[in-house]
Amino acid sequence: MNRLRQNIRDMAGYIPGFQPPDIASWIKLNTNENPYPPSPRVREAILAELGEDAALLRTYPSASSSLLREAAGRLYGFDPDWIIMANGSDEVLNNLIRACAGEGEEIGYVHPSYSYYATLAEIQGARVRTFGLTDDWRIAGFPGRYDGRLFFLTTPNSPLGGVFSLAYIEELAGRCAGLLVVDEAYADFAGENALELVKRCDNVVVTRTLSKSYALAGMRLGLAIARPAIIAALDKIRDHYNLDRLAQAACLAALEDQDYFRRRCDQVVATRERFSAALRALGFTVPSSGGNFIFATPPDRDGRRLYDDLYRSRILVRHFSDPLLAHGVRISIGTDEEMARTLAVIAGGKHDATA
Amino acid sequence: MNRLRQNIRDMAGYIPGFQPPDIASWIKLNTNENPYPPSPRVREAILAELGEDAALLRTYPSASSSLLREAAGRLYGFDPDWIIMANGSDEVLNNLIRACAGEGEEIGYVHPSYSYYATLAEIQGARVRTFGLTDDWRIAGFPGRYDGRLFFLTTPNSPLGGVFSLAYIEELAGRCAGLLVVDEAYADFAGENALELVKRCDNVVVTRTLSKSYALAGMRLGLAIARPAIIAALDKIRDHYNLDRLAQAACLAALEDQDYFRRRCDQVVATRERFSAALRALGFTVPSSGGNFIFATPPDRDGRRLYDDLYRSRILVRHFSDPLLAHGVRISIGTDEEMARTLAVIAGGKHDATA
Repeated sequence: MNRLRQNIRDMAGYIPGFQPPDIASWIKLNTNENPYPPSPRVREAILAELGEDAALLRTYPSASSSLLREAAGRLYGFDPDWIIMANGSDEVLNNLIRACAGEGEEIGYVHPSYSYYATLAEIQGARVRTFGLTDDWRIAGFPGRYDGRLFFLTTPNSPLGGVFSLAYIEELAGRCAGLLVVDEAYADFAGENALELVKRCDNVVVTRTLSKSYALAGMRLGLAIARPAIIAALDKIRDHYNLDRLAQAACLAALEDQDYFRRRCDQVVATRERFSAALRALGFTVPSSGGNFIFATPPDRDGRRLYDDLYRSRILVRHFSDPLLAHGVRISIGTDEEMARTLAVIAGGKHDATA
Repeated sequence: MNRLRQNIRDMAGYIPGFQPPDIASWIKLNTNENPYPPSPRVREAILAELGEDAALLRTYPSASSSLLREAAGRLYGFDPDWIIMANGSDEVLNNLIRACAGEGEEIGYVHPSYSYYATLAEIQGARVRTFGLTDDWRIAGFPGRYDGRLFFLTTPNSPLGGVFSLAYIEELAGRCAGLLVVDEAYADFAGENALELVKRCDNVVVTRTLSKSYALAGMRLGLAIARPAIIAALDKIRDHYNLDRLAQAACLAALEDQDYFRRRCDQVVATRERFSAALRALGFTVPSSGGNFIFATPPDRDGRRLYDDLYRSRILVRHFSDPLLAHGVRISIGTDEEMARTLAVIAGGKHDATA
């Protein structure tokens, strides 16, 4: 007897974005990290939690993350029982599948978007159905009534950057028999979000991460907002101590420093718009993006060539071999200086960092 | 249509041990936390990772936790591909069930031990079978061949403290068709462990936590040791960034300071032995314990009465209403001073902290 489940043996596993070991010598624009440090209050809060001898670390953290849920509730306009905290939004995406889809049941998502949804479904033994996109940011062939247990809608989409309209998301919610999970990992860089739909539609869940807009990818912090009955189910599924003490301290401090947060988001958005315009002036196709990245297609439509050119100059971007995406690259928005250097390499053709 | 799975709707959810909000005014002996702070190197490592502006927190942590797996490998005598790191051992217990047991399939464990195994099985939709204990620390009625997908053996057992012999664990491994997971959360306080069985038996998995012996409950760190094929399956299931940067820094520093670790474990064990002897002198039944706690039955065999007496003196221990356990209480081993005060309350009968 093989002791492992068939679906686990069959699956390939998810490969996260490449992290070069000699990271300091790269311009790293491949995993949509924030180029700026988190709020200074994050470090202060961690130091306060550590104290003189880190003695608090010997004790369990808050199991309910209640202070964080209250802070997020104030920020987003929900009672704390509409909110669950997670060890990165990946944890709550995982638990949403576990809450809704049994073995052999279907979940759906848009391709291209976040391929980790498929990995999570494979772990569960659930089936996956993907849908393509139309040119006007609708889902191609989405049925009048979608009977899958759950549908993931990434908006702003990654890697393309497009944003689904609120009216269309609401229409989708009405067509979904199961949950509609609106994955808003990048929403803080966009002009709108779907939070009001959580109140209007009883099957809408919004997920957020602090990895991008709050510059806390290293601390694994995310959350979901939904009706209390859905949150209560997710609460049964999560590890009861899912967030460590320092992550909780960091999260609270970051959420409460909205001035810093807003200033940094505005900076990234301004850089994104300038960089997009400069690429377009070079003949690139750059669709409007609501994220902290752009999807750039060079005039020769050879994304791999562009990736290699940048790589030789120690600039790391993301190329996807998928035929839908191979013509371009996804470029995370760094500092103005990083984007100027990136632009110089692109404008000048091949560069060698050692030259 | 209800949008949540039936098993999730039906389950109650796990209730972790009570954490009083005014914790500083209690002697807290209810969740087997270490009374001593973690190694001073833990704090230093966290500060080093934070740096001047916490800028590293904006970037993703190591997905593979490779430095930690190498350090644990050196410590325990295994190659890194025999080791997986987890966000608390709860994460890896969860993922072991996901790796082995599909919906409707059976997992087993000893009752009394860690009831969270049942919660994890309920989330998965797996069935649970429990077995009792004999007086000589064997499993009552364990079949010649156990066909469940996985069996959890907690040794040292909590709350009773008993340790299964290595020979008996090896015998059990031979009788298990599926995995035998030896949950060694407390093994660092015992005289022996089952690590050599991981090498001898291809279905044995050992799990560990840094919560107790390394005084890092607040940082959520655990690990599992098993054959590379099992580790590879668990690796597909875990969140790809399951450990945040500061948890990884803390873990590495703690594992590498073995002098401090050994000294603190010895201290807890010495206190445990003194406290056990003192209770026995008062007529209590206190079985030998391999953990950082004891299970104490007072002469009147009224565990609830003892719990209440201690509670009134702001000493928090654990009482279980289960008929198998209601006659006693589980008392975590604190500092010598804390145990002396606990003993004074027990010896003197009811005390009121405000008196």
